[in-house]
Amino acid sequence: MKRGHFITIEGNEGAGKSTIAVMMLDYLRKKGLDVVSTREPGGIAIAEQIRAIVLDNGNTAMDGRTEALLYAAARRQHYVEKIVPTLAQGKTILCDRFIDSSLAYQGFARGLGIDEVMSINAFAIEGGFPDLTIYLDVDPEIGIQRIHAHGSREINRLDLESLTFHHRVREGYLEALARFPDRIVRVDANRVIEDVFAAVAGALDRFFDRTE
Amino acid sequence: MKRGHFITIEGNEGAGKSTIAVMMLDYLRKKGLDVVSTREPGGIAIAEQIRAIVLDNGNTAMDGRTEALLYAAARRQHYVEKIVPTLAQGKTILCDRFIDSSLAYQGFARGLGIDEVMSINAFAIEGGFPDLTIYLDVDPEIGIQRIHAHGSREINRLDLESLTFHHRVREGYLEALARFPDRIVRVDANRVIEDVFAAVAGALDRFFDRTE
Repeated sequence: MKRGHFITIEGNEGAGKSTIAVMMLDYLRKKGLDVVSTREPGGIAIAEQIRAIVLDNGNTAMDGRTEALLYAAARRQHYVEKIVPTLAQGKTILCDRFIDSSLAYQGFARGLGIDEVMSINAFAIEGGFPDLTIYLDVDPEIGIQRIHAHGSREINRLDLESLTFHHRVREGYLEALARFPDRIVRVDANRVIEDVFAAVAGALDRFFDRTE
Repeated sequence: MKRGHFITIEGNEGAGKSTIAVMMLDYLRKKGLDVVSTREPGGIAIAEQIRAIVLDNGNTAMDGRTEALLYAAARRQHYVEKIVPTLAQGKTILCDRFIDSSLAYQGFARGLGIDEVMSINAFAIEGGFPDLTIYLDVDPEIGIQRIHAHGSREINRLDLESLTFHHRVREGYLEALARFPDRIVRVDANRVIEDVFAAVAGALDRFFDRTE
């Protein structure tokens, strides 16, 4: 049986990733593909246990490198228990966030180093990079306004501090894009959702034209 | 304040590591050193939580690479929370098992690859290798007989199968020794404990002559 396609979706805050992921799933299914949608830890018991440690608010002393190793461990288990067997069944995987999130957030924005975060993730996925990654690129100012449009409060000082961080996340993604120009497709996500999705659909069409 | 010394002790099964560690602690204290004895996860809450996942018998699906990443994560947290601050106080650390256990057990004996296990552990310890590592080298046949001399039953088929694994662990340690000949001191542990310790004490004396 032919191995399925491994597609991931990435983006900074307010890029519309969740909405676009739902539209992508629908689009891929209409193409006749058998698609499994997932995200880490993906209901994998061991990966859920690991993520619980990362998210435990009591673990205030957690070092950034400990956290990065735990994310890589959860990724590994989700990868071997869910992604690899699903692809082997000929199904397509659509995964919300994967290795590029670690490169952008931990590697670049939190300053651990993209090469170093890459080394532990390369160990985790053993060369099993996605076949296609859609990166939704939104200007952090627009992204933060979108997030607040959903809520009821105005943008405050903490939001503006976090804006610096979101700029660094975006720079991290652009750095990942520079390293993997054949795998990652950047989509301008500063537009209305219909226009963003039209660009995503075009990228999916080109990918399938090339691979099938 | 002058940074303390970071000393680790390693060995395959039945090498007498626990007994020698107690004797080393006593010997170092008699030299007038302020010594802290530790082993991973060392009572560090986050590291204990991580080790609980590794040791959970319910986690039968745990992949070898997931396990190696979890050991590296627990090592990182124990390192930054306990080893680094203790050394910074000018105290000597005596740590029972550290990076070389991962190289020998996961990297070599379980076949993940020494270079690959090294890469995730290099990320975890950021170049913070021990100043001195005592490796107690016992022939696996002698080691397994020692372990059974403590128990009441005879050596069975499973023990003989595990003998092959213990031989691989020993090969892994010798490979680590070949890579770090200046840091790791091999001590022949096939002798009576007094003779083994005399060799360890000699190695400690040479180390302190060299560094002080």
